[in-house]
Amino acid sequence: MRVLILGADGYLGWPTAMHFSNKGDDVVAVDNFSKRFWELELGIETLEPVPTLHRRIARWRQVTDRVIELRVGDLTNHRFVYKLLEEIRPDAIVHYAEQPSAPYSMHSRTNAVNTQVNNIVGTLNLLFAIRSYCPNTHLVKLGTMGEYGTPNIDIEEGYITINHNGRSDVLPFPKQPGSFYHLSKVHDTHNIAFVCNIWKLAATDLNQGVVYGIETADTARDPELRTAFHYDSVFGTVLNRFLVQAVCGIPLTVYGEGGQTRGFLNINDTLRCVELAVRNPAKAGEFRVLNQFTEQFSVLDLATRVQAAGARGGMKVEIARVANPRVEKEHHYYNAKHSKLPELGLVPNLLTDEVLDRMLATVRGHAHRINRDIVQPSIAWAQKHP
Amino acid sequence: MRVLILGADGYLGWPTAMHFSNKGDDVVAVDNFSKRFWELELGIETLEPVPTLHRRIARWRQVTDRVIELRVGDLTNHRFVYKLLEEIRPDAIVHYAEQPSAPYSMHSRTNAVNTQVNNIVGTLNLLFAIRSYCPNTHLVKLGTMGEYGTPNIDIEEGYITINHNGRSDVLPFPKQPGSFYHLSKVHDTHNIAFVCNIWKLAATDLNQGVVYGIETADTARDPELRTAFHYDSVFGTVLNRFLVQAVCGIPLTVYGEGGQTRGFLNINDTLRCVELAVRNPAKAGEFRVLNQFTEQFSVLDLATRVQAAGARGGMKVEIARVANPRVEKEHHYYNAKHSKLPELGLVPNLLTDEVLDRMLATVRGHAHRINRDIVQPSIAWAQKHP
Repeated sequence: MRVLILGADGYLGWPTAMHFSNKGDDVVAVDNFSKRFWELELGIETLEPVPTLHRRIARWRQVTDRVIELRVGDLTNHRFVYKLLEEIRPDAIVHYAEQPSAPYSMHSRTNAVNTQVNNIVGTLNLLFAIRSYCPNTHLVKLGTMGEYGTPNIDIEEGYITINHNGRSDVLPFPKQPGSFYHLSKVHDTHNIAFVCNIWKLAATDLNQGVVYGIETADTARDPELRTAFHYDSVFGTVLNRFLVQAVCGIPLTVYGEGGQTRGFLNINDTLRCVELAVRNPAKAGEFRVLNQFTEQFSVLDLATRVQAAGARGGMKVEIARVANPRVEKEHHYYNAKHSKLPELGLVPNLLTDEVLDRMLATVRGHAHRINRDIVQPSIAWAQKHP
Repeated sequence: MRVLILGADGYLGWPTAMHFSNKGDDVVAVDNFSKRFWELELGIETLEPVPTLHRRIARWRQVTDRVIELRVGDLTNHRFVYKLLEEIRPDAIVHYAEQPSAPYSMHSRTNAVNTQVNNIVGTLNLLFAIRSYCPNTHLVKLGTMGEYGTPNIDIEEGYITINHNGRSDVLPFPKQPGSFYHLSKVHDTHNIAFVCNIWKLAATDLNQGVVYGIETADTARDPELRTAFHYDSVFGTVLNRFLVQAVCGIPLTVYGEGGQTRGFLNINDTLRCVELAVRNPAKAGEFRVLNQFTEQFSVLDLATRVQAAGARGGMKVEIARVANPRVEKEHHYYNAKHSKLPELGLVPNLLTDEVLDRMLATVRGHAHRINRDIVQPSIAWAQKHP
């Protein structure tokens, strides 16, 4: 298949590009490197330096003799998107090309507006280009479990049957996003669902949980094929951050009570889920929603697991309950369905002690690189400034 | 009270500004005249020429000795919004300042993107400015009943109690908007609900039905105080369009089967509803949603009513079922709740034969002005063009 990976320089985009290329698919990688720019703005560093996308693609060819094609451009430039799709006409588009951080979006008015404009306009341009040049392509869009918030009822996969006053309908599951970033994903969801209906496009929305992990089968082939591992409070996901904090002796930053419960998955399962979505496409006119995670944990659960992994490795790990910079419930019901991807064939890689120990060992091997200045949370949801 | 009217040059904005000014409130009117620009783009004319906002405000002062203050500026310019709120610090903000047309938003990629960016960024800038300079102000935002779409269950006012798998929660009513414009309103809704939660702002979302009517008590005071009456297929609402079609002998353009049912209200009730919302503000942290309409009609019901009004006036009015340019259900269940505004004191002006006859007579008085070229629908939802 011809697979277009948008946001191919990212934590998940690069391993996804290699994953499809390794399976023999014809991969075109697109990025505008805006995330690297946002990292520079904030002084954020990855655990190991990440080679340029150009260099990684060249290295991939040396190692595997497979070609990933690179196009550099910005989805908010509709001329770029139109020309790209007119020329490539992919069978599937994997769309990671969005500003992905909740704290980044909450930093200021500028960041809130830029996040929403970047994500909404990029996706709208993509939808119009698909309509014009490849209306039969399958759009696989990365959403987030955070679109649902933490309702006091079971979370279904995208839709819910509501019985009300003696009547019934299957309706979009109500959304309660918790940041300007999560809001941008909800806006995308509504926009994409609409065009699937009116233009009969085919799309799958992968409402992904929190991803953890450092390596995939392909990144492990060569140091120059690594992906970005963020441990800072802006782009780092919670488990990845806890591992770094454990290694450098910073008490794990549990926000508030730590009862916040979310869905989690291993980076290797992200690759498998995206592949399952691509190989089993949505139908024309269908807006399919899959909840993409494998296990639920509370933040305190995770901290305790990391503490235990540290103890097994001879490290004393402390847990700190820091003032919660976010506005969110710290104790709540959470039961999110996630059976559709297993039905398509997903066999989860669960967070075993062995997996945790291996990740911790990997982070320890790079302990000298850790910048302690970027670990603590610095962006508050409720702050007031003109 | 000090009341800020955003979008004060519009069909509803101008009568609202006069309404509050007449009650003795201190009114500041804001517009950037973008709607007049969009009209020029499309060659659209109002039934009668509409004096500039500057001239109408000057005339208002001559007629009533009351002062409406004018500020010209664009909400997507955050510096303008910040300075405005820092200086005015209003008690209430009535926010009409959005691109208001579904067909306009469906015309092209450019219009879809501009509608969403204009509406979302303008509203985000406003929310940040409120947080910084007047966090206790009450934001009254015009939404639309179209945010809900046409679900097969009763439509509640903003929220619905969902019982599911033995548990229960009150959640935002699921949204199924039917155009890029309606989508922009849903995006606003989610953004505003979020900041009410995290910043404890107070907002009322008026999910308004389709407005009809030509005159209010204040526009009738003087010809130079009139408001814009659109009868074209882009900015004209359906009943207003039907009246013009009846007068100039064009068969009424019922889209498809005409079973599309919506909530409707008289322009005078819009003024009363907005006033009730302003006088009875939402609480800090509350995102209050009121469904703002007084009666439900199907499009075919309305056409039949106009046909009968024509017959009473000695005109033979035909009804044409034109191919539906929109993608929407033409037969569906529709029962939308709207009891909260009556509970606040709204006494509806219903669409009586007398009201219809008076509107029809007014339009007949300006029949010589009607431009037949702008009446027929010209923008299709499902069209394919690169």
